[in-house]
Amino acid sequence: MDFRRVIEANRESYMDELFEVLNQKSISAQNDGIRECAELMMEKLKGSGIGHVELMETEIHPVVYGEYHVSDDAPTILVYGHYDVQPPGPIEEWESPPFEPMIREGRIYARGAGDNKGQIMAQIMAIRTYLEAEGELPVNVKFLIEGEEEIGSVNLDSFVAQHREKLKADLVYTSDGPMLPNGHPYVLLGVRGMLYVELALREADFDNHSGNKGNIVPNPAWKLMDLLHTMRSADGQVLIEGFHDTVKAPTEREMELIEKLPFDLEEVRRNVGHAGIEMTKAEYYRKLCFEPTFNISGFTSGYGGEGAKTIIPKDAKVKIDMRLVMDQDPDVIFELVRDHVAKHAPDVSVKKLGQMSPSRSSADLPFIEPIRKAAEASFGKKTFIQPSMGGSLPDAVWTKVLGTPSVVVPYANVDEANHSPNENLVVEHFYSGIETTCRVIAEMKHIKL
Amino acid sequence: MDFRRVIEANRESYMDELFEVLNQKSISAQNDGIRECAELMMEKLKGSGIGHVELMETEIHPVVYGEYHVSDDAPTILVYGHYDVQPPGPIEEWESPPFEPMIREGRIYARGAGDNKGQIMAQIMAIRTYLEAEGELPVNVKFLIEGEEEIGSVNLDSFVAQHREKLKADLVYTSDGPMLPNGHPYVLLGVRGMLYVELALREADFDNHSGNKGNIVPNPAWKLMDLLHTMRSADGQVLIEGFHDTVKAPTEREMELIEKLPFDLEEVRRNVGHAGIEMTKAEYYRKLCFEPTFNISGFTSGYGGEGAKTIIPKDAKVKIDMRLVMDQDPDVIFELVRDHVAKHAPDVSVKKLGQMSPSRSSADLPFIEPIRKAAEASFGKKTFIQPSMGGSLPDAVWTKVLGTPSVVVPYANVDEANHSPNENLVVEHFYSGIETTCRVIAEMKHIKL
Ligand SMILES: [Zn+2]
Ligand SMILES: [Zn+2]
Repeated sequence: MDFRRVIEANRESYMDELFEVLNQKSISAQNDGIRECAELMMEKLKGSGIGHVELMETEIHPVVYGEYHVSDDAPTILVYGHYDVQPPGPIEEWESPPFEPMIREGRIYARGAGDNKGQIMAQIMAIRTYLEAEGELPVNVKFLIEGEEEIGSVNLDSFVAQHREKLKADLVYTSDGPMLPNGHPYVLLGVRGMLYVELALREADFDNHSGNKGNIVPNPAWKLMDLLHTMRSADGQVLIEGFHDTVKAPTEREMELIEKLPFDLEEVRRNVGHAGIEMTKAEYYRKLCFEPTFNISGFTSGYGGEGAKTIIPKDAKVKIDMRLVMDQDPDVIFELVRDHVAKHAPDVSVKKLGQMSPSRSSADLPFIEPIRKAAEASFGKKTFIQPSMGGSLPDAVWTKVLGTPSVVVPYANVDEANHSPNENLVVEHFYSGIETTCRVIAEMKHIKL
Repeated sequence: MDFRRVIEANRESYMDELFEVLNQKSISAQNDGIRECAELMMEKLKGSGIGHVELMETEIHPVVYGEYHVSDDAPTILVYGHYDVQPPGPIEEWESPPFEPMIREGRIYARGAGDNKGQIMAQIMAIRTYLEAEGELPVNVKFLIEGEEEIGSVNLDSFVAQHREKLKADLVYTSDGPMLPNGHPYVLLGVRGMLYVELALREADFDNHSGNKGNIVPNPAWKLMDLLHTMRSADGQVLIEGFHDTVKAPTEREMELIEKLPFDLEEVRRNVGHAGIEMTKAEYYRKLCFEPTFNISGFTSGYGGEGAKTIIPKDAKVKIDMRLVMDQDPDVIFELVRDHVAKHAPDVSVKKLGQMSPSRSSADLPFIEPIRKAAEASFGKKTFIQPSMGGSLPDAVWTKVLGTPSVVVPYANVDEANHSPNENLVVEHFYSGIETTCRVIAEMKHIKL
């Protein structure tokens, strides 16, 4: 199967197709060009040999759905991506107009070049390549390309729940986000979940003078801190009853994967802006992939300006974001937090500001290593498998709502500048991405499910 | 001694003198009208029979000094006040121009009406009244009227230290600030001191993403809270070694005075804007007069706006103001705080933003009760003695630098709106203040020192 030869023969036309898509605005937050872009994506799917293509409405922006059916007995890959983009931001910081793609020094510059049009187009061009090389696909392929990712995938959960039968698959395959530094691909098997809460206490109707009223009116900053110290010990242990109960230890296989991951302590230090960080590779990935956090994103009470202001603040507020790991359920953890606060400081209000379930696909699945090899062969760079990212993405929509394993294999360079001016995609990553998807499809036919 | 008759006979001329002073701008922060006002004050002293009057320079605005000498053997009262005023603030909020005094509904409206021109002029007019009634004063009287009070009395300590001999007295007598609600006068014997520190910790060079870096980079808000919890227990006890060592218990006489003070729990609740306050009179005054505070005036770290921002803050900062009681020395307490932080969290910086010594004159001094009676007779309202105020004033300049007992007897109404638009003084308080000073002078001659 000479995918690379087909890709080389079509370099220019594939790039033209991508440029056409990048040329079409599709800013979901501003509802600008969305429907035109959805139509264009349908055209690209049809033009690449996907037999069945349809537009499926949601409450905001439509999903572009495509399906290439081989046989009911063949494995099925569901490719997920999004055609909407972020607003371009400060236009004067762009070196070329965001919706007029341009190649400079081996990179395609345009809004959406990396996030996600360049990556989803690589997946679509892979179907075209595979068909030109082999005449037909060896597995069923479905495409779900949504138009609401950059506004939080607000309808994705309910869409997937509603169309569970239609979307049935053996693997959800996503290319989004950046690769590792120096162009190393990696296969991501999961994400941490998230629970974001705000605890607030209003003690008095106004700030009081710290002299005239000092010792008379209680201080809400102290009260909130006292509460926080019942929630977490000075050595960092979360003390909320039940918080750790469902935390799963990493498997042996996951620990093996971690041992193979790259690690450079100096780079970590630069990356977090803290020269004093000390940790081993195993610690680093264990803390990042398998341990929850209990982080303060903000604490505010009273006066924060220059110099002295002598007040007893009227209120205090803390924002806590917890990254959750398997199998912590954000709904359950929220109940635990609420119960804890009700018990220790009933005056303190608890507000949920966001949540996401953790999600992790098994490292033992038979297609994980073949996918790694497919990326390694296509990019010509050592390729890794990371059991989970530290951040949070709505991956549980696949693993929990659809009930299907999910892997993310980013094709974009680490400095893709997504969400920023001068977003870009390294030209060769587009082509290596096409080849990776072809190889993944080829491998999937060998998998015994 | 019919002081009241003399006052009644001079109502209009006394008010004219006060209006002339209120008419003269004297904004120390803006150096506007200061010297003109100082000259005017000298004129008022001379015109009231003070034989020796002089202008004494400091590094910023001059002190107006006056002295009426009777005999080396007679007791000496040093009257302290200030002729400078706050800037008028938002001019559109004034119902009449701040430097054009006007009487409406029994109140004099003008910047400085209460703070402090109306009160210091009552003291000066008292000399005029006494001399008209009796022909001569029974005690030596000195006047120290400074021009830097509203910019923090920055040179007062060194001025008093430099002129210790000249300022020698048996009592420092000040009328400044507001009386109790409902026009009840009180004699204040002291103030709490103050130590204001800022603790800060910068952990990373920038805010980190709470997902991608969560558990990798330490959180400065947690670290600062952990430190704060080594400094104060959840039940409010200060845990810094030595902090309480020099705290003096109230004397029996002081506790008796407190029992006589007015107390209305509902009014306290309204006053602090907190309906849930529960305390007895004894608790209230003990906490306010005799116990130090360890208050957080501000704690800021990370994001404090609406909604969720997922960061690990780069830094955290807390402002602590401690009100100190006798005999806590702010220099010593600062060393204790610094040592404590160095021991428990050496990364945290400690900055001193302000300090003031506590000061309290003995309730056993023979002239305290006569002064109370003088105010009670003059204002015709039950008058109290409070061993200390909760707030801080530079009273230690008298009790420690000069080594002289000091009492404060405010003549201004509780709603004088000092430092605010529409500052005012109840007209009758001006006249009752004059009478009070006359009676205090009369009483002082009976005191065996
Ligand atoms: Zn994005
Ligand atoms: Zn003032």
